[in-house]
Parts: sequence; C-alpha cells; structure tokens
Amino acid sequence: MTEFMDVHHGMKGITDEQLREAHRADLAIESEESVHFKQAWADPESGTVYCLSEAPSAEAVQRIHERTGHPADEIHPVPLTV
Amino acid sequence: MTEFMDVHHGMKGITDEQLREAHRADLAIESEESVHFKQAWADPESGTVYCLSEAPSAEAVQRIHERTGHPADEIHPVPLTV
Repeated sequence: MTEFMDVHHGMKGITDEQLREAHRADLAIESEESVHFKQAWADPESGTVYCLSEAPSAEAVQRIHERTGHPADEIHPVPLTV
Repeated sequence: MTEFMDVHHGMKGITDEQLREAHRADLAIESEESVHFKQAWADPESGTVYCLSEAPSAEAVQRIHERTGHPADEIHPVPLTV
C-alpha cells in the first residue's frame, strides 16, 4: 500500500458540510477498492481540495472519487513523508 | 492560527534524507515566525512536495521556507479539514 495525495481544483466556495459529505461518500465505498481516505483539507477561496489516502494504486483512488462524483485532477503517490 | 498547505514543484528525485533535512531546517527556525510545520509528503517522480503547517499567515510560512532555501510555489489556507 502506498500513500497518495490527490488534488481537486474548481471547488470554490466549498463548505464544511460539503467536504464532510464528500468524505463520507468516499468512506462508504472505499473498501471495494481497498482504498482508505485518511484526511482532506479544503481552501474554499481558491477552490482547492487536498485528499490523503492509502491505496493499492492511483487508479483505485480515482475509481472511488469518480463513483462519488468528484474525480481528482491530480493524484500523486507520496512515498516519502516526514 | 490557520492551517496552510504549501506546495513545492521541481523537486524531482528528492530523497527521504533530503526531505528530512529540509523539514529539520524549517523546524529549527519556525518559532521565530510562530509557524509550526506539522507534516510533509513528497512525490520524487513528479517532484512535488506538500507541506502542512499551522501559522499566523501565508507570508509567515513563506518567510521560513525562504530562509531555509526552499520557497513554496503555492501556499493555500485550508480552514476546512476532515
């Protein structure tokens, strides 16, 4: 399993409730792809959302995000952490 | 205090030791700007580094990163987290 950071653009004005709801939707089906979404951070002003997960592949992360209606614009493996 | 996610591009080939050393350098002087760098994640292949901090402003984050030789390309406040 690898950690991934994925980035969503164009989420201007996202609210706390919308972020929670999107995260809940991902968590509800993540196990079908052996993904676990760990944390997410949002900047409503620029419309950027960062999402940290542990997953077998970037494709698995994207399949979950697509099924819940918010495909990522970028997905980076982040094998190094500190 | 607000959380910030900053992004560094152009770090292709960054090693675990280099990430740790950069983080150590930030931690050594962060208190001078009341910043705290909490975590960082690196993708050596695309050369992207994500850095999560708590700080009084984006400018304070950038002043520390500049003094330690790795200014950020983007700094986003992330007031929403899940």
